[in-house]
Amino acid sequence: MTDTLKIAIAGLGTVGTATIGLLQAEPTHGGSGRTIELVAVSARDKSRERGVDLSGAAWFDDPVAMAEAPGADVFVELIGGEGGVALAAVEAALASGKAVVTANKALLAAHGMRLAALAEENRAPLLFEAAVAGGIPAIRTVRDSLAGIPITAVLGIMNGTCNYILTEMERGGRSFADCLADAQRLGYAEADPTFDVDGFDTAHKLAILSSIAFTTQIDADAVRVEGIRSIEPADLEAAAELGFRIKLLGIATMTAEGVDQRVHPTMVPRGSALAETSGVTNAVSIRGPAFGELVLSGPGAGGSATASAVVSDLTDLARGLAPSPLGRPSASLMPFRKAEASGHLGAYYVRLPIADRPGAFAALATRMAAEGISLEQIVQKTPHRPDHLPPLEEQTVILVTYPTSSAALARALADIEADGTIVRAPHVIPIAQTL
Amino acid sequence: MTDTLKIAIAGLGTVGTATIGLLQAEPTHGGSGRTIELVAVSARDKSRERGVDLSGAAWFDDPVAMAEAPGADVFVELIGGEGGVALAAVEAALASGKAVVTANKALLAAHGMRLAALAEENRAPLLFEAAVAGGIPAIRTVRDSLAGIPITAVLGIMNGTCNYILTEMERGGRSFADCLADAQRLGYAEADPTFDVDGFDTAHKLAILSSIAFTTQIDADAVRVEGIRSIEPADLEAAAELGFRIKLLGIATMTAEGVDQRVHPTMVPRGSALAETSGVTNAVSIRGPAFGELVLSGPGAGGSATASAVVSDLTDLARGLAPSPLGRPSASLMPFRKAEASGHLGAYYVRLPIADRPGAFAALATRMAAEGISLEQIVQKTPHRPDHLPPLEEQTVILVTYPTSSAALARALADIEADGTIVRAPHVIPIAQTL
Repeated sequence: MTDTLKIAIAGLGTVGTATIGLLQAEPTHGGSGRTIELVAVSARDKSRERGVDLSGAAWFDDPVAMAEAPGADVFVELIGGEGGVALAAVEAALASGKAVVTANKALLAAHGMRLAALAEENRAPLLFEAAVAGGIPAIRTVRDSLAGIPITAVLGIMNGTCNYILTEMERGGRSFADCLADAQRLGYAEADPTFDVDGFDTAHKLAILSSIAFTTQIDADAVRVEGIRSIEPADLEAAAELGFRIKLLGIATMTAEGVDQRVHPTMVPRGSALAETSGVTNAVSIRGPAFGELVLSGPGAGGSATASAVVSDLTDLARGLAPSPLGRPSASLMPFRKAEASGHLGAYYVRLPIADRPGAFAALATRMAAEGISLEQIVQKTPHRPDHLPPLEEQTVILVTYPTSSAALARALADIEADGTIVRAPHVIPIAQTL
Repeated sequence: MTDTLKIAIAGLGTVGTATIGLLQAEPTHGGSGRTIELVAVSARDKSRERGVDLSGAAWFDDPVAMAEAPGADVFVELIGGEGGVALAAVEAALASGKAVVTANKALLAAHGMRLAALAEENRAPLLFEAAVAGGIPAIRTVRDSLAGIPITAVLGIMNGTCNYILTEMERGGRSFADCLADAQRLGYAEADPTFDVDGFDTAHKLAILSSIAFTTQIDADAVRVEGIRSIEPADLEAAAELGFRIKLLGIATMTAEGVDQRVHPTMVPRGSALAETSGVTNAVSIRGPAFGELVLSGPGAGGSATASAVVSDLTDLARGLAPSPLGRPSASLMPFRKAEASGHLGAYYVRLPIADRPGAFAALATRMAAEGISLEQIVQKTPHRPDHLPPLEEQTVILVTYPTSSAALARALADIEADGTIVRAPHVIPIAQTL
C-alpha cells in the first residue's frame, strides 16, 4: 500500500462538492495514516464555480475516459441514473481494476449483480454505503455488524421527499398536491416527482438492502410498489384518531415461501421509532430473532450527509479493507425467490365511501364476515351539516380489520363494490403492527 | 488463514450460552467461508446444565490457564468485572498473541488504554462491540462508518435498567423504590443496583464510545455522574406537562476547552428518538456537522442481543479483519482534556419546595434575575385541599429556565436556599434541547 489513495470523482453536484470539502478538511482519514488525494474530476460544465479547490485535479469531459485513465486508485461515481454514462463509467473503472464508490441506487438495483461479479473478477472493490438511506450506515450494519446473524425483516422510511410530504400533510391538514408543491419549492422534490412519490426510489434501496440482509440476489423487479399519491387528508386524520401515523415504508421479509418485498403507505403506531421519524429524516429497522429490532435513523439525503457515507467507503479503502460488494461472493448468493403476497397476514385500515342508504352498513359487514374478516374498529364519519341542508349522499366509513390475508380482503371489497354499497373504490392501507 | 477460526469462551452465563447457540446455528459465518469452532470453555461450575452442546470443547477451571493454552485463535471474555480474573485472562490472552473479544465495559473503562497498547504490541486484535449498548452496533458506527467524519457529540440511553425504571415510574405514577423492586423481580436489575441506577455503568460505556468518537484517550474518571435515585413521580408528571420525558443520558461533547463527559437525568423533548425509547431498549445519538444526527436504537442488554454483537466481532476475525481496538493506533490518540462544566450553557428544569409565605415567589424570582437567568416557564403546583383543612405550609414551584450556565444557576439556588425561601434542597434536571 502506498501512502496515498488517489481518487477520481465523476459528478460535481452537491454530493460531489461536499465529498471534496470533507476530504480537504481532514486529508488523513480514519487513522489509516494514508492521505486521500483528489487526482481527477469530471462533470458537465467545467466553467461552473463550485466553491471547492479543484486546482490539483485533472479535468475530464468524459467520465468513461476518466474511468479508464491510469493514475487513480478509486473511481467515485456521483453522476446518477440507471444506465447511460454512469453505467459505462463504472464498468470501465472496474474492468481497469479500479475500486468504485457509488451513491447510485438505480444503477445498483438494475445492474448490481452483474457489477458485483465484474468487481470480483477484477479484484476491484465496489462500495455503495451512500446508495441506501444517505448518511445512515444501513449497508454496513447488515453487511458487517449483522453478518452471520439471521435477519427476518428489513424495513423503513427510505425516501425523504415522501416523508416530508406526509409529515406536512399531517401537520397542516393539507392536500398531497399542496405539500408536493412545497417540497418542490424547497428543493426536496424534483420537477418530475414520479421517481420519489410513486415509490420507485424506495424500491431500489429496498432491493439492495434486502439482497445483503437475506444473502439472495438483487431483484428490484420483484418489489410490489405503491406510492403516496392516493393518500388524502382524511386518511391522516383517521390515522391520528386511531393512534397511527402514515409512512411510506419499504418492507422486505424472509418467509418460508421466499422473500416478500413491498413498498406502500403503512399505518405505523405512534410512539414507535418509525412513526416519530418526521420530515426528510430516514429510518431503517432491522429485525431478527437474536437481537429483536435495531433502528437506525438519520439524514436520508442532502449533500454533506450523503458525502459522509461516500467518505466512509473511501476510508475503508484507505485502511486496506475490501469487503465483498454484497457481503459475500456474488456467486454464492441464493437466487431470488419471490413470496406470494396473497398469503400475507396483516391488519388493514380501509376507507370506504358508502352510499347513504338503509342497509349499506349491514351489507358491507356481511361481506366482510363472509370472508372471515373480523373488524377491530369501525368509525363512521358523519360530517356536521346545518339542519336546513339535506343529508349527504355519501358517507365515509373507516374499518380497522384484525389480521387477515390480503386475498380475502380483496375478495370482500370486490363483492362490496359489486353490491353497489360503495360509490367509489375503497382505500386500503396496511397496518404495521403485525409486520 | 486456515479454514477454521478456533475460539475459547470464558464465562457461560446468558451471553456465553447464547453466543454458542448462534455459532452452532450457522457455523460458517458471514460468507467468510471459515468455520468458527468452539475448542475450549471455562466457567465456575462444570456440572451445571446449560442447554448447549459443549462436548467438543476442552474444559478449563481456570480462565487464565485457558487464555495461555495453545489451540485457540480467539479468547472470548464474558466473565465481567473491572479487574480480577477477567483482567488477568485478557492480559494473558493478548500476551500470547490471541485475539480477544469481550463484552466487559468496566474492564475497558478502567484498563482500555493499557489493553489496547498490549494488543497492538502483540498484533492481537481486541474487539468489544458488545461492551457498549449490547446489540446496537455503536462502536462499529463511530469506529468505521464515521471514521474520518468529524463528530461533535455522542449521547444516549445506555442502561436498560434505568430506562425500564423511569418508563415504569412515568406509566404508573409510581416511586423509584417500587419500580426498582419490579426491575429486580424481573431480572433487569441486580440485588445491588448501585452500578446501574447510580450511573456508573452508563459512565463506563460513555467513556469508551467518547474515546473512539473524539480520538482521545479513555478517561472514565473524568465523567461527571449522577444517577436516578432522586427522581420523584412529581418530576415525571411535570415533565409530561411540559412536553418532556426524563431519561438517564450519557453525554459526551467535544468543546473548544476539551471533552465534556456527563451522566445525569435529562429532560428530553417528547417525539424525539431518545424520548420515545422506552423500557430496556437503548438508543445512541451521534452528532456532527456533516451528517447532523444519527440515532441507533435497539436491545441494550439480554443474552442473545449481546451475543449477536460478540458474533459480529468473531465474524470480523473470521473475515481476516483486525481494526485497531480504538479505531486508530492507541499511541496516536490525543491525551484526554476535561472541559470545565461551569461554562456549559443549557436550559434547566428546577423543582423548588417553597415555604408558603408572602413574598416567597418574588424572592426567588429576584435571585434568578440577579444572576441573569431568564425564566421560560413557571408552574406553581397547588394541590387541591378540602376547604376545612388549613393551607399547606409547603408548595412546589417548577421553573424552566432559558439557557444559562450551570455555575450561575448554582449561585442563584444557593442564595435562594440561604434566604430561607425553600424548605429543602431544590431538584435540578438539565433539558436536552440545547445539548
